[in-house]
Amino acid sequence: MMEIIRTPEELQKKLKQSQTGEIGFVPTMGFLHEGHLSLMERAVKENQTAVASIFVNPLQFGPNEDFESYPRNEERDAEMAEQAGIDYLFIPSAETMYPKEMSIELHMKKRTNVLCGKSRPGHFDGVVAVLAKLFHIVQPDRAYFGQKDAQQLAVIQAFVEDLNFPIDIIGVPIVREADGLAKSSRNVYLSETERAEAPQIYQALKAAEKVFAKGERNPDRIIAAAVEMINRSTTGTIDYVELLSYPELECLETVGQRAILAAAVKFSKARLIDNLILEADQPLQ
Amino acid sequence: MMEIIRTPEELQKKLKQSQTGEIGFVPTMGFLHEGHLSLMERAVKENQTAVASIFVNPLQFGPNEDFESYPRNEERDAEMAEQAGIDYLFIPSAETMYPKEMSIELHMKKRTNVLCGKSRPGHFDGVVAVLAKLFHIVQPDRAYFGQKDAQQLAVIQAFVEDLNFPIDIIGVPIVREADGLAKSSRNVYLSETERAEAPQIYQALKAAEKVFAKGERNPDRIIAAAVEMINRSTTGTIDYVELLSYPELECLETVGQRAILAAAVKFSKARLIDNLILEADQPLQ
Repeated sequence: MMEIIRTPEELQKKLKQSQTGEIGFVPTMGFLHEGHLSLMERAVKENQTAVASIFVNPLQFGPNEDFESYPRNEERDAEMAEQAGIDYLFIPSAETMYPKEMSIELHMKKRTNVLCGKSRPGHFDGVVAVLAKLFHIVQPDRAYFGQKDAQQLAVIQAFVEDLNFPIDIIGVPIVREADGLAKSSRNVYLSETERAEAPQIYQALKAAEKVFAKGERNPDRIIAAAVEMINRSTTGTIDYVELLSYPELECLETVGQRAILAAAVKFSKARLIDNLILEADQPLQ
Repeated sequence: MMEIIRTPEELQKKLKQSQTGEIGFVPTMGFLHEGHLSLMERAVKENQTAVASIFVNPLQFGPNEDFESYPRNEERDAEMAEQAGIDYLFIPSAETMYPKEMSIELHMKKRTNVLCGKSRPGHFDGVVAVLAKLFHIVQPDRAYFGQKDAQQLAVIQAFVEDLNFPIDIIGVPIVREADGLAKSSRNVYLSETERAEAPQIYQALKAAEKVFAKGERNPDRIIAAAVEMINRSTTGTIDYVELLSYPELECLETVGQRAILAAAVKFSKARLIDNLILEADQPLQ
């Protein structure tokens, strides 16, 4: 039976009292989909105890972002987490996580001024602040993050390495709809037409990947292939299509062994992201 | 037998392999004196395993401060720590603690722009950065800090609370020489004359405490008593004498239940600090 826990103190007490063995942790903002479930299933499989959290973290939303309207459905989330085999589902309030104004500010200097970080100043600072708290509350051996948020994963890896957190950060592959659209809590905000077009983002990344596989190493020409296809086959507006080293997220003059090709596209009520890792020696999937 | 350990990986392996029980931790910058020993003795007494560290953290020294000349004596320190009952003495190099430029910056906004923080911008940011690392490497149940560095203790308490570190922060009373001078690694830099005068800092704080005990609640008048005595009886230059709420370290119009009276005095080659906690209901010691 999964237990729902609402305060840090209660969770720490529970984990201290039980024979947890190794702990796997899946932090989420809720409104779970198969992407989250794949993280939870890995956490359940690889650890004696699996903890998930649902917390829509105000610190990582900008003033004009969708904090208030971010979709929430706690009851359904709890059912899904329990089915996935989660032992403890942590759902704290903002008041219990931030009981007073914090004295500390965390700032990530690297890996943040590209991709989503460019249009979301302070976003990753908010992400690492809440993760520092959650990691100390849960004290996991492993924490699981989706590769869909590839920049988030890269930033978290730097954060954990810099501060010597005793936690393995595990990136889990993107889960997609049958038509290729990356699963996202924000997909519910697409209109019917937009939903039909949205898989073209992934198709565009794959088209660019083919250009790379044929030997193209100029980042601009690889990017152009994706941009052209997104513009041609969707009504969305491109926020970015970028090609960077991975996980350093630095600009490239020539694509080397390993890079990320990532896109963000704005539709009327949702901004979708997707990415592919380009590896020179890997066969196309 | 105490073991000396020089890398985070080795320490984490050791601690994982042994039946540590509860861990007490004493982070230091070395050149140990009785002040440190009193922290170590508490850690040994209150925990199954006691870990101390010696690391002169470059991040907490300003460009014109005494990082290079900070006194070091590893052999003597190791003997003293072993005698105090420490199980593991962690002495990492700067390279193993900071193998590359960090992506993260930590910044303490509160409790830092007063007392020593005013003349040492960034100092406490460096302190909490290295402590985040050390806390994750050692994973102690309790960590011990001297009340001599009262501001440091207050900042660390806010840091640990803000980020939910599962660690009890324990403040240990100031250890003094027979003549009242607070023990400090920097005392060795005093000239003979300065060493003879230096106990007057504590006497000045006690004189001000008497003014408070007689009912004075105006901070300026309490401070004036200390300033007058330091100026009259030492050749040092006052960096500050301040009276603030404790542990919030906020300015006071009237001294309430609990406050800190703290002084920093510059001598030719050393800057000494000392403090007293003023408590309205406590008898004078």
